[in-house]
Amino acid sequence: MDTTEHDARTAPAFTEEDARISELLALLRPLADLRAVNALAEWDQNTALPDGAAEVRGAQLATLQGVMHDRWTAPQLGTLLEELGTVVDQPKYRDADRGLVRQTRRAYDHATKLPRGLVEEMARVGAGSFEAWRKAKSQNDFALFAPWLARTVTLQREVADRLGYAETRYDALLDLYEPGMTATKLDALFAPVRETATALLRRIQTEGQPVDASCLEGEFPVPGQMELSESLLRFMGYDFERGQLAQSPHPFTVEFGSPYDVRVTVHPDKRFIQAALMAALHEGGHALYEQGSAPALTRTPVAGGASMGAHESQSRLWENAIGRSQAFWHTRFAHVAEAYPRQLAGVDAETFTRALNRVRPSLIRIEADEVTYNSHIIIRYEMEKAIVNGNAAIESLPGLWNAKYRDYLGIEPESDSEGILQDIHWTGGFGYFPTYTLGNLYAAQIYATLRKEFPDFDQRLAGGDTSFVLRWLRERMYVFGAIYLPEALIQRVTGERPQPEYFTRYLTAKVEETYRLPATSHGHTHA
Amino acid sequence: MDTTEHDARTAPAFTEEDARISELLALLRPLADLRAVNALAEWDQNTALPDGAAEVRGAQLATLQGVMHDRWTAPQLGTLLEELGTVVDQPKYRDADRGLVRQTRRAYDHATKLPRGLVEEMARVGAGSFEAWRKAKSQNDFALFAPWLARTVTLQREVADRLGYAETRYDALLDLYEPGMTATKLDALFAPVRETATALLRRIQTEGQPVDASCLEGEFPVPGQMELSESLLRFMGYDFERGQLAQSPHPFTVEFGSPYDVRVTVHPDKRFIQAALMAALHEGGHALYEQGSAPALTRTPVAGGASMGAHESQSRLWENAIGRSQAFWHTRFAHVAEAYPRQLAGVDAETFTRALNRVRPSLIRIEADEVTYNSHIIIRYEMEKAIVNGNAAIESLPGLWNAKYRDYLGIEPESDSEGILQDIHWTGGFGYFPTYTLGNLYAAQIYATLRKEFPDFDQRLAGGDTSFVLRWLRERMYVFGAIYLPEALIQRVTGERPQPEYFTRYLTAKVEETYRLPATSHGHTHA
Repeated sequence: MDTTEHDARTAPAFTEEDARISELLALLRPLADLRAVNALAEWDQNTALPDGAAEVRGAQLATLQGVMHDRWTAPQLGTLLEELGTVVDQPKYRDADRGLVRQTRRAYDHATKLPRGLVEEMARVGAGSFEAWRKAKSQNDFALFAPWLARTVTLQREVADRLGYAETRYDALLDLYEPGMTATKLDALFAPVRETATALLRRIQTEGQPVDASCLEGEFPVPGQMELSESLLRFMGYDFERGQLAQSPHPFTVEFGSPYDVRVTVHPDKRFIQAALMAALHEGGHALYEQGSAPALTRTPVAGGASMGAHESQSRLWENAIGRSQAFWHTRFAHVAEAYPRQLAGVDAETFTRALNRVRPSLIRIEADEVTYNSHIIIRYEMEKAIVNGNAAIESLPGLWNAKYRDYLGIEPESDSEGILQDIHWTGGFGYFPTYTLGNLYAAQIYATLRKEFPDFDQRLAGGDTSFVLRWLRERMYVFGAIYLPEALIQRVTGERPQPEYFTRYLTAKVEETYRLPATSHGHTHA
Repeated sequence: MDTTEHDARTAPAFTEEDARISELLALLRPLADLRAVNALAEWDQNTALPDGAAEVRGAQLATLQGVMHDRWTAPQLGTLLEELGTVVDQPKYRDADRGLVRQTRRAYDHATKLPRGLVEEMARVGAGSFEAWRKAKSQNDFALFAPWLARTVTLQREVADRLGYAETRYDALLDLYEPGMTATKLDALFAPVRETATALLRRIQTEGQPVDASCLEGEFPVPGQMELSESLLRFMGYDFERGQLAQSPHPFTVEFGSPYDVRVTVHPDKRFIQAALMAALHEGGHALYEQGSAPALTRTPVAGGASMGAHESQSRLWENAIGRSQAFWHTRFAHVAEAYPRQLAGVDAETFTRALNRVRPSLIRIEADEVTYNSHIIIRYEMEKAIVNGNAAIESLPGLWNAKYRDYLGIEPESDSEGILQDIHWTGGFGYFPTYTLGNLYAAQIYATLRKEFPDFDQRLAGGDTSFVLRWLRERMYVFGAIYLPEALIQRVTGERPQPEYFTRYLTAKVEETYRLPATSHGHTHA
C-alpha cells in the first residue's frame, strides 16, 4: 500500500511560485531538519545513550537548541511574517500557505517573546524539580517538592504574561498545546464527561455483571508480544518502510521528518498481555497520523499533527474505539491465542474483549480504563486552573487532590506518593493534561462520523479490514497536517465543532454492553 | 575501573585562562557538538533508518553540514588562528594548546580552501560513482565504472592542488588521513614489508607445516557470539558505561563525544566463529583509544585519535598482536568452548590460535591474514600513486591490478568483479588505504615497546590480565588524543620515529611459530 499518494485535488500544497512563500520555506526547511536531528538525539538519549554520556549529550542538545533559537528569532523571518500576514488571506494563496504562516508565527512569537534567561531558568527549575520530586515521592514527603512546584508556578505565570491571553493566564498555557483552546470552552466540554463518568461508575457498581479480566494476566514471554505488536501495526496499515518498532521503558511515538520516518516503541510486560498490545494500537494511531501527512508539507511546521488533542484523538480512536471493540478482536484474537495457547486456553474473543474493557477505579492515571480515565484528567485540570489562575496555596494541594479523588472516583490515596506525587508531570509545566480528554472527545466524534459514513463498519472490521478506515482518515484529516486549527479541523472532518455528547454516548454504549446493563443510550452499540 | 582518571601531572589540559584559547574553545565546542550530532544521524542511517527516509535524512545531514561549514569558515576563527599561530609556541602555552591550534588550522584550511561547489560536486560524483560501481561489479564490466573513476581522479587532483603539497599531489591526499605523511616516507616504510611478506609466503608454501583452520567453521548461533564479543570487550577494559555493543552489517566504531560515548558494532557470521570475535577485538581497540582520550580534550578537534594510522595501530595491536596470541587465548578459549561445546569438541587453545593465524593468499583484502594483508594495501597504494601523480590511463588499470596480484600474491582474479571492482573504496577518493599498513607498522613498534617494558608480558596475559596493557597505553598514548602529529606521537610512545623492522620481525616470528619453521628472526617469540 502506497501511503504517500493522495488525490491531487485534495492534497495540500504551498504556493511555492510566490516569492515570499518560497523565501519562507527556504528559512523553515533547515529549521525542520535541525528539529528532526534534535529529536533524534533525544530519542537516542531515551533508548541507547550510555549513562556516562549524559553530560556531553546535554551540551550537544544545548548547542542545537541555540542554533535553532538564533534562526527562529532572525529578523528576516519576522519581516517576512509581517508581510505575509497582510496578504495571505487573499485568494491567490492556499490553505496550506495560511497554515504555514500561522504555525510559523506561533513559533516565532514563542521564540521572541520568551527571553533566553527565562527559558534557561525553566530548564534549571525543571531539572531541580525532577530531582526534588523523585526524593519527595520515595520519602512520601510533599514538603520536599512544594518549593519547586511554587517556582514552577511563578515561571509558568511569567510565560503566560509574556505570551498574552484574552481571558485567563491558563489559556495562554493551554494554547501552547491546543491552539485556540480556552478554559471557558473546556469547562463546557468537560462537565458532561464528568457527570456521565460518575453516573456510569455508579451503575456498574450497583447493577453491572462482573467482568473477569484474569485472562490478561499470566506469563507472556516478550518475543511473542513483540511479534503481536508488529502484526497489529501491520493490520492497522502502519508503513514499516517509513518506520520502525522498538522497545523502550515507556511506549512512545517519535518522528524525524514526517511522513518519512515515524517510529514507535512499546514496553512489553511479561505479566500483562494487554500493555504492549494496547500500546501498539495507541502509538500506531499517533504514527498513522504522522505517516499520513502530505509529502508536500514535509520539512515545515505544518507537517504532522494539528495539536496534542488532535494527535491524542488518533491514538484513542485506534486504541479504544477500534482496538477495544468486539469487531476488531473477531479476527485478531486468533493471533494472540496462537502465540500463547497455554495461557489463553479456553478464552474466546468476546471474553478477551470484555476483559480489555473492564472498569475499575484506581489511583493511577496511566492504568485507568475508559470510564475513569477522564476523571484523572479533569482532577488535574481543575487543580491546574486553581494553581495558575487562582491562588491555591501550594501546601493545600495534597488535601485538594485527595478530596477530588474521593468525590470523582470514590477512592482516596493513602499517601501522597500514590496521590499528588504519583508522576513527574508537574515538574515541567501546566496546560497539556486537558488535551488527553480532548483527544477522547475528538476521537468519539470522528468515530461517530466514520460509522455514519460506513453503515457496515462493524461487519467490515470483523471481516479483517481496516484499510477503509485508514483511507478515510487520511483523506479527511491526516493529509492536512497542521494546516488547520484543531477546532476547524474537527469541523472539517465531522461537520461539527467539537462537542462532548459523542463521547458520552460512546462511553455509555460501551459500558452498557460490557457490563450487560439495560440500554439507555441512543448511540450505536458495538457489534 | 575508572577510565577517566589520569595522573594530573601527565594529563593534558588547555591554557583556558588565556583569553584567545578560551575564545577559540568557545567557537570549537559547539562545532564539536554539531559534528557529534551529525555522526549520530549517520550512525542511525547505518543501523536503523527506514528505507523510505533516505531522502529526508539526506536533507537533514546537508543542513547540519551547512551550519558547520558556515562556522568553520567564520572570519573570527581565521583571525584567532592567525593571532594564536604567532604566539602558541611560547612556553606559556602547552602542548594541548599547540595541538588544538594545529588541528583547528587543518580543518579551517580544508573548509576555506575547498570551495562549496567542489565539495558538492565531489558528493554528486561520489553518489554517481557508487551506483556505477554497483552495476559494473554485478555485470563484471569495468567500462561502466571507468568514466566515473576518471571524474574522481580529476576532482581529487583539484583537491590536492587547492590544499597544496611539497612533493607530489598524492601527498596532499595522504595528509588528509595521516597528517605529515608523504609518499617518499611511505615508499621507505613499505619496501621491507613487501619483501618480507613475499619471502614469508614462499617459506610457508615450501616448508610450512599445514595449519588446520576447520575448527573456525561450523554452526555458531548468533546470541552466543554476541555474548562472547561482549565478554572480550570487558576483558580488554572497554567501558560499557561510556559505550555500547550493537550489531550492524559491517562492524565499526563510532563516537558521539569522546571519551564519553564510544560505540562498537560487530557482524556475527553463523558459519565462521572468528568474524565477530576478531571484530570485537579490532573495534574494541579503536574504542579503547577513544575512551582513553583525556576528558579535558572533550568537545574539541583534539579529542580522540591522532590519525587514521594511529587509530588503526590500536585496532591491530588488540586484534592481531594481542588477540591472535597463544597467551591471550590461554584463558579466553575456555569461554568460547563453553559457549559452543559441541562445535569445538576436541579443539584446544593452541589449535584455535593457530587456526586464527592461518595464512592463505586470497583476492579479497578484508578476508586477508596478517602476511598477505599488506600486499593488498601496497598494491592499492602503488596504483593510487600511478593514478594521481603519474598519468596511468584508466583503461589500463584492470590489467595493472591483475599483474600486481600475480606478482605479490601469486594469484590472479578471474574477473574484474573480484579484482579491481571488488570494493567501493575508489568511489570516494584516494589516500587512506596506506593508513591500514601504517597502522600495522605502528602497532608492531608499540607492541615491541610494551614487551620491553613488561618482560613478563606473556605470563601476565596468559594469567588473564590485560589491565597493565591498557593502563600503559592510556598513559603513554590515548590520553593525548590528537595533540601530537602521528610521527611525533609514535616517537613519544616508543622512543623512535616509525620504522618497518618491528613489524617485519613481529610477522616473521609469528609465521615461524604458526608454521613451525626454523627461527631466523631475533625478535621475540610468542609464549
